[in-house]
Amino acid sequence: MKLYTYFRSSAAYRVRIALNLKGIAWESACIHLVKDGGQHRRPDYLALNPQGLVPALEDGGQLLTQSLAILEYLEETHPEPPLLPAAALERARVRAVALAIACDIHPINNLRVLTYLRRTLGQPDDTVNAWIRHWIESALAALETMVAPTAGRCCFGDAPTLADVCLVPQLFNARRFDCDLDACPTLLRIDAHCRELPAFRDAAPENQPDAAV
Amino acid sequence: MKLYTYFRSSAAYRVRIALNLKGIAWESACIHLVKDGGQHRRPDYLALNPQGLVPALEDGGQLLTQSLAILEYLEETHPEPPLLPAAALERARVRAVALAIACDIHPINNLRVLTYLRRTLGQPDDTVNAWIRHWIESALAALETMVAPTAGRCCFGDAPTLADVCLVPQLFNARRFDCDLDACPTLLRIDAHCRELPAFRDAAPENQPDAAV
Repeated sequence: MKLYTYFRSSAAYRVRIALNLKGIAWESACIHLVKDGGQHRRPDYLALNPQGLVPALEDGGQLLTQSLAILEYLEETHPEPPLLPAAALERARVRAVALAIACDIHPINNLRVLTYLRRTLGQPDDTVNAWIRHWIESALAALETMVAPTAGRCCFGDAPTLADVCLVPQLFNARRFDCDLDACPTLLRIDAHCRELPAFRDAAPENQPDAAV
Repeated sequence: MKLYTYFRSSAAYRVRIALNLKGIAWESACIHLVKDGGQHRRPDYLALNPQGLVPALEDGGQLLTQSLAILEYLEETHPEPPLLPAAALERARVRAVALAIACDIHPINNLRVLTYLRRTLGQPDDTVNAWIRHWIESALAALETMVAPTAGRCCFGDAPTLADVCLVPQLFNARRFDCDLDACPTLLRIDAHCRELPAFRDAAPENQPDAAV
């Protein structure tokens, strides 16, 4: 499979982790979101993915977009090891954690929104950084409450699920923006455990071919 | 089932449509997001849903959160009529449209973000309205391109899927904020068709018990 990816995109990071956990062979097609005015805005990339976002995954000549749709696709086409439990209620709980990150934290803090705050609204860096911290810190505190009852070494028991696949990239972002994470000891413990696993380690931004030097 | 809902929440609107399409009996527990300083911030609601967002769905004493996790749960527990195709690739495409709305449009324009722009950043109404229109109009134009190749009367053929369940509430929001929708004739045609269907009509904001009078 070929993954259109950017080392620091947390949505691409999710898919890299899942590909590794499933043991799927994949190669990187690096789309730099900053260089060249943003390679994701080039007509050839927009022709592949009209949203102009990363990641996108090519499998058998077909292009898939939206990281969570890609994760569900990988789960359906490569069921082992499972990243969702078997029972509908537990699946819903795992997906709720993944979606709380993918819908309610990440999109409000991604590059295009921060650029709009800076350039169109003329907000200074301090205000933009406070914006990021506000959304990440309040959302992670709620997530800590959601995850605490089911947490083992991972968010749901001891094996990684889609919740962990989304959590670890979000905590990478939180650290990058100096968020206060004192309210989420369980999430930090899970994150530390997961980042020791080879599938997560190999997917980390600093281990990608396009990582800034 | 009991749905914690707010008439104008487009995430709750999605779940109302899906419950109706599946023919599931449900009752409303109305959580007013504006009255009383926001009933979603009350301790009793936060004890149920730490994120303090609507919708949440109670089924057999269990509480589910996150609209897309709820939609997948309904699909797994009440498979007829299906709101996802059978093949993994097609499922991924339907989910990508649903997620493009649920991740990349809705969260940037929901009440808490608009309130932060107004109150914390002190932005005037014109700027906030331009923010809303910028994100909705650019995203819907991309969505038009994504959906055009597969569209019938609905986003994927002639029967509603999770894509339509997310699209119709998003277009309700787009009209509410006077967005320019000239770039998305296919989406508008699908929306008009779906809104004629009883399941969509009965789920519409104006037909909810908590609708503003």
